[in-house]
Amino acid sequence: MEIPSIYLERAVDQFSGLPGIGRKTAMRLVLHLLKREPDDVRAFARSLDELVQNVRYCKICHNLSDEDECSICKNPRRDHSTVCVVENIQDVMAIEATQQFTGVYHVLGGIISPMDGIGPQDLEITSLVQRVEAGDIREVILALSPTMEGDTTCFYIYRRLADRELKITTLARGVAQNDQLHYTDEATLGRSILDRRPFSA
Amino acid sequence: MEIPSIYLERAVDQFSGLPGIGRKTAMRLVLHLLKREPDDVRAFARSLDELVQNVRYCKICHNLSDEDECSICKNPRRDHSTVCVVENIQDVMAIEATQQFTGVYHVLGGIISPMDGIGPQDLEITSLVQRVEAGDIREVILALSPTMEGDTTCFYIYRRLADRELKITTLARGVAQNDQLHYTDEATLGRSILDRRPFSA
Repeated sequence: MEIPSIYLERAVDQFSGLPGIGRKTAMRLVLHLLKREPDDVRAFARSLDELVQNVRYCKICHNLSDEDECSICKNPRRDHSTVCVVENIQDVMAIEATQQFTGVYHVLGGIISPMDGIGPQDLEITSLVQRVEAGDIREVILALSPTMEGDTTCFYIYRRLADRELKITTLARGVAQNDQLHYTDEATLGRSILDRRPFSA
Repeated sequence: MEIPSIYLERAVDQFSGLPGIGRKTAMRLVLHLLKREPDDVRAFARSLDELVQNVRYCKICHNLSDEDECSICKNPRRDHSTVCVVENIQDVMAIEATQQFTGVYHVLGGIISPMDGIGPQDLEITSLVQRVEAGDIREVILALSPTMEGDTTCFYIYRRLADRELKITTLARGVAQNDQLHYTDEATLGRSILDRRPFSA
């Protein structure tokens, strides 16, 4: 596909470098931008400049933040003795959206995955251990995805923390709310029977 | 979904304002950008600034161009007496990719669609008529999509040009190359029988 403008081509190159966006989609997006007001497009460009200029990682939990400490770590009304360990910032937002958690977070920045060349040293695990050693943390919730990589990472962190006085918990696994039972996979259904709980009306 | 940084939120807003990109995808794209080198992201922003700064429409054919006249209109080796009328710039690139057309183009910038409130006055039809009236054009190829809107637009342009000494043609319709005959829709198959051509080996 020959592009009649070098500036158009450069913008298409940039968009098609994003994950999941091919050249045809990139072209569609850029042509859409060209139909907008130039000031709108400049605002788009400015938002990217300001993004890399201003966004940083919270030095306590490694969540994204506009300041050195994120709004969750700075909040005195949150329970700073309960730390929820998650893979990434999307997980923080997903758990926050449930409004069921009042503790604080620790964002690993990934998950142990030998296939992708990601080992424990690439993740914020040592900083988690340091947080625990600094004291005042009573519970660590391992809220990682129930996949092989997630389980591996949970086990690794568990071993790094196990010799301390600390409650280490993990998310409940079982059938999903509103799922049809006969569509639930065997592993999940089997686990939900083993982990059955007293019925409360 | 509460976003912990106003700059992150603004960038997500910008991406989710693009067609076909929802907030979750926008978040994924922005987090991807944050993992890149800051200079890479600044280059992305700069490509958008330069896009609106430099890209303009060719004053002859209304294709996108870096200059007042596009490279196709400026090319003396192209046949300037044959004008191919297309809906948008993607169609120009699609036809150029076939390497079967040596004439020049006229980009309408859309298609007549009363449902979307797009009438002939919103398109580059008057400028097409003016190009024809200026002389030296022997053939106009109506290369619009074979849809109701495309056919309507073809018919409208045909009526605006019909009283002139001019060959007006349209793209051949028939079964697509490599298509299975029994999967071809009835309208296309019927048309391909009516428009059958002498076999040449």
